[in-house]
Order: sequence, then structure tokens, then C-alpha cells
Amino acid sequence: MYTFEELQDLVRERMAKQNFIDVPEKLFEPIDYILEDGGKRLRPTLLLMATNLYKDDIEKSIIPAIGVEIFHNYTLLHDDVMDDADIRRGRPTVHKKWDKNVAILSGDAAAITAYMYLVTCEDKYLRSAISTFNNVAMDVCKGQQYDMEFETRMDVTVEEYVHMIYLKTAALIAGSLKLGAAFGDASEKEQDMLYDFGKYLGIAFQLQDDHLDAYGDVKTFGKKIGGDIISNKKTFLLISAMKLAKGEQKERLLAQINATDFNEEDKIKTVTEIYNELGIEKLVKEEIVKYIDKSIEILNDINVSEDRKVILLEMVTILKDRIY
Amino acid sequence: MYTFEELQDLVRERMAKQNFIDVPEKLFEPIDYILEDGGKRLRPTLLLMATNLYKDDIEKSIIPAIGVEIFHNYTLLHDDVMDDADIRRGRPTVHKKWDKNVAILSGDAAAITAYMYLVTCEDKYLRSAISTFNNVAMDVCKGQQYDMEFETRMDVTVEEYVHMIYLKTAALIAGSLKLGAAFGDASEKEQDMLYDFGKYLGIAFQLQDDHLDAYGDVKTFGKKIGGDIISNKKTFLLISAMKLAKGEQKERLLAQINATDFNEEDKIKTVTEIYNELGIEKLVKEEIVKYIDKSIEILNDINVSEDRKVILLEMVTILKDRIY
Repeated sequence: MYTFEELQDLVRERMAKQNFIDVPEKLFEPIDYILEDGGKRLRPTLLLMATNLYKDDIEKSIIPAIGVEIFHNYTLLHDDVMDDADIRRGRPTVHKKWDKNVAILSGDAAAITAYMYLVTCEDKYLRSAISTFNNVAMDVCKGQQYDMEFETRMDVTVEEYVHMIYLKTAALIAGSLKLGAAFGDASEKEQDMLYDFGKYLGIAFQLQDDHLDAYGDVKTFGKKIGGDIISNKKTFLLISAMKLAKGEQKERLLAQINATDFNEEDKIKTVTEIYNELGIEKLVKEEIVKYIDKSIEILNDINVSEDRKVILLEMVTILKDRIY
Repeated sequence: MYTFEELQDLVRERMAKQNFIDVPEKLFEPIDYILEDGGKRLRPTLLLMATNLYKDDIEKSIIPAIGVEIFHNYTLLHDDVMDDADIRRGRPTVHKKWDKNVAILSGDAAAITAYMYLVTCEDKYLRSAISTFNNVAMDVCKGQQYDMEFETRMDVTVEEYVHMIYLKTAALIAGSLKLGAAFGDASEKEQDMLYDFGKYLGIAFQLQDDHLDAYGDVKTFGKKIGGDIISNKKTFLLISAMKLAKGEQKERLLAQINATDFNEEDKIKTVTEIYNELGIEKLVKEEIVKYIDKSIEILNDINVSEDRKVILLEMVTILKDRIY
């Protein structure tokens, strides 16, 4: 059995050995750029963990796993164009470093590269792998569409929001685990269980991201605190606050949301104060734990020996422990 | 045996029966929009012709063939964003009718839809089909990249140009024929021959498009005459003229290319005059015929009875007859 860190290192090591450059170089340089910048390699690592749940030999899962990571980075690349984001993981985004056309076309080429890596899986897995991948790839597009639509909507419900983050973030995590299980020769039922495990885990990850935007430590969060607040992003926090705030409190919140000319620090401070008055942090923590517990429940039902499940369980438990 | 027109009608009929709309609707409406506007349906029709070369029953090729057409339209959609084109087949482009973000994301979803259609092929064809498709999909991206790079280059050679149009246009035509042959249980050798047939045919098609931009009849061309001339597009015509023009003639040509403020009709007239002086029309016609003849040569070598080849041969002959 490999630990999370061992598999993460393995993914990094193998990715470093890939040659993503072909001619014309300008098409491939941005792909190389987005893949060289680190990142947690969460999805390929989870894919390998799922294979490793059933098999000791995970070698044949590695290249398809890298395919999933390439796909993930391609979605970030195109999302950054659509959101006109300047920075990704501390470096200029592709459309800022090059331009929009480069970002669109190199993104398209990256998506195809992802498929090329994925289909290196053995014949017996091919149809199911490509079908899983197509479905989650489409889910990611749907999620991004909802996310953009939510920007101009003030009536987004928590249910709609959770469905959106499932599509945009959790589906690819879920799909990675399902693919890994398939490559481990798990039964279809167990593949679907690992999908659901990943779905709940992915939702919990995103809610934790929402949580840390307001309540995180800048040193460990890796992003500026309050970014979501400044941009009025419809996170679990804001949606819940909009629902719970009444009277003068709601007016204060709406005043912050509607302000076009504001001091960023003041806005973060005021909105966070309203969150505190409404007990939003407790709410989001409860929601995160709810999804973590759902994922643990599924993991418990998976029919492999406890000693093989321990690595996945440990990872989830660490996430849960961090909440309180 | 089906005629070209019968297969074209079959593709149109089946495409009209597809439901491309899912939720969120805004993601899928542009896909439906780009697929409802007609077009020649050349690629899926050629795919079916290639299957029909080997088999009477082409039913199982139809949905994958539609996948190829979806992919083609997706590339046009993203190309139109990159080129900031206003009109496609007489209607506003997606990024004009909606906006750029819609065009990027719906394009991404269309690419995934194309894969979903393609992988409906039978298991025995799946690996080779997806591999052919991945390769030509990547070629299309490479071709678009070269095309964009050529915009700012004045030293593009005819060889580079032909390689670019092979990647951008001919590869998908070639791939369609190869896929169709594979679904017809043709040998790998014959699949590759049909690929090469399509490659030369596709190059001839694009050169004919270049030719008609300057020398076509506005009624049958379907586009404005001289569009390539106005935008200084590095077509076979301009590249050849740049190579052949000397002295005062070259100065006149460069003056037209470098002019920032000009009357469009005057520029078309002057550049066409230079083309006429240099015998460019004869040159491009010879080049088209060269590629058509290469494609006919391959078709002759394909090991099926003459009566099955007659439809493809007729199509190529009609194209050749139109040249003179």
C-alpha cells in the first residue's frame, strides 16, 4: 500500500518526465506551463489510491491519472479566460502571459492531450473509462456554466449551490476515484461507491475552500483571504447569510454587495462581522462535516479489508479534524 | 450503394432528430445553434461513403459520423472567437449572438459531445477510432496555431502553407474517411489509403476555396469575393504572388498589403490584376489538379470493385471538372 504522499510524489515524478512540447511550440508551451507549476495533484493521486485499494500494482493507472490532471488544468485554463483571472497558483494566467487566443487554443489542445493520456488504459477498461471521463468532463462544463449564471443571480439556493460545486469540482474528483477503482478491477457497484465517496469529499473540499476564504490563515490558505467576499462570489457563506439576514442586517449586507466604490479591507471586515453575527462559520463547518461523514459512511461499506482502506480514511479524517 | 446526396440527406435527417439540448440550457443552446444551420455535412457524408465502400449496412456509422460533424463545428466556433469573425454561413457567430465566454464554454461542451457520439461505435472499433480521432483533433489545433502564426509572417512558403491546410482542414476530412473505412472493416492498409485520399482531397478543397476567393462567382461561392485579399490572408495565391513578383510589381503588391486606409473594391481589383499578370490562377489550378490526381491515384489502388468506387470517383471528377 502506498501513502497519499507517496502516490502524490509518484504523480509528480512521472509528470516531470512527460514531454508535453511538440510543434508548433507556441501551441504546447502553455500546456507545459500550466502543468509545471505544482498544484496538489489531488485528482491523479486519488485515482491511484482507488486502484491501490484493490491492487498492489498501480503502474498502469499512472498515465491515465496524468490525463485526468491535464484535463483539470485545461478547465482551470479556460475558466481563467472566462473569469479574466490574472493569477493562478502565484503565476500569471496563460491569457495574461500570452493572450486570449493562445489560452483558448492551447486549452483545446490540452483537452485532447488529456484524452490521449486517458486512452492508454488497457482495452478491457477503455469503454467504461472513456464513458466515465466524457460524463465528468461534461459535468465540469455544466458546473462552470451554472457558476457563471450565479454571478448575476441573487436568489441562488444552498441546494443549487451544492449541485453546482458537485458538477464543477466534485464530479472530476468522483470520476477520478471511479476510474481508479475500474483500473483496480473493482465491481461496478464498488466503482459507483467510490464515485459517491469522491462526490461527497469533493463537495466538502469546496465548502472548506469557501470557509477558508473568510476564516482561513493566509499562510496556509495560499490565496488572499476575502477574495470571494470582495467579488460577491455566491459561496455557501454568502448564500446562507443572504437567507438568514433580516431587517437592518440584510440592508448592511446588501449595501456591501451593491457598493461599487469600496475599501477592500473594510468590505471584508464588515461582511465577516455579519457572517459572525449570523453564525455562518458554524453552519459551514456543520455542512462540511455532513459531507465528510457521508463519504466516510460509503468508505465503511466498501468491501475491501480495513487495512487497505486506512489510507483513504486517514485522509478524510485529517480533513475533518481540521474543521474544528 | 448510396449516392453522395443520399448520404448527405441521411446525415441531415439524423442530425435533425438529435436532441442537443440539456440543462443548463444556456450551455447547450449555442451547440444546437451551430448544428442547425445547414452546412454541407461533408465530413460525416465522406465517413459514410467510406463505410459504404466496404459494406451495404452503414447504420452503425451514422452516430459516430455526426460526432465528426459536431467536432468540425466546434472547431469553427472556437476559430470564430479567435478570428473575431462576425458571420458564419450567413448568421451571427456564437460570440456575437451571445458572448465570448458562452462561445468558449459551449465550444468545450461541443467537443465533449463529439467524443460522446464517436464512442458509440462498436467495441471492436473503439480504440482505433478514438486514436484516429484524437490525432486529427490535435492536427486541427496545430493547423489553427500555424494559421494564426502565418498572419504576422511575410515569409510563409507554399510548402508550409500546404502543411498548414493539411492540418487545419484536410486532416479531419482524411480522418473521417479513415474512420468510415475502419467501421467498414477495411484493412489497416486500406484505412490509411483512404486517409491519404482524404488528405489530398482536403488540400484540393482548400486550394479551390483560395482560388474561388479571387476568381469565384459570388452567386455560387456563398461568400464575398476578395475576403482573403482584403485581410491579406496568406493563401496559396498571395504566397505565390509574393514569391513571383519582382521590382515594381512587388512594390505595388506590398503597397496594397501594407495599406491601412484603402477602398476594398480597389484593393481587390489591384491585387487580382497582379495575380493575373503573374499567372497565379493557372498556378493554383495546376496545384489543385495535382492534389486531385494524387487522390484519384490512391482511389484506383483501393482493392474494392470498381462499381463501389464509382461514387467517390464521381465526386472527385466533378471537383476536377469545375477547375477548368
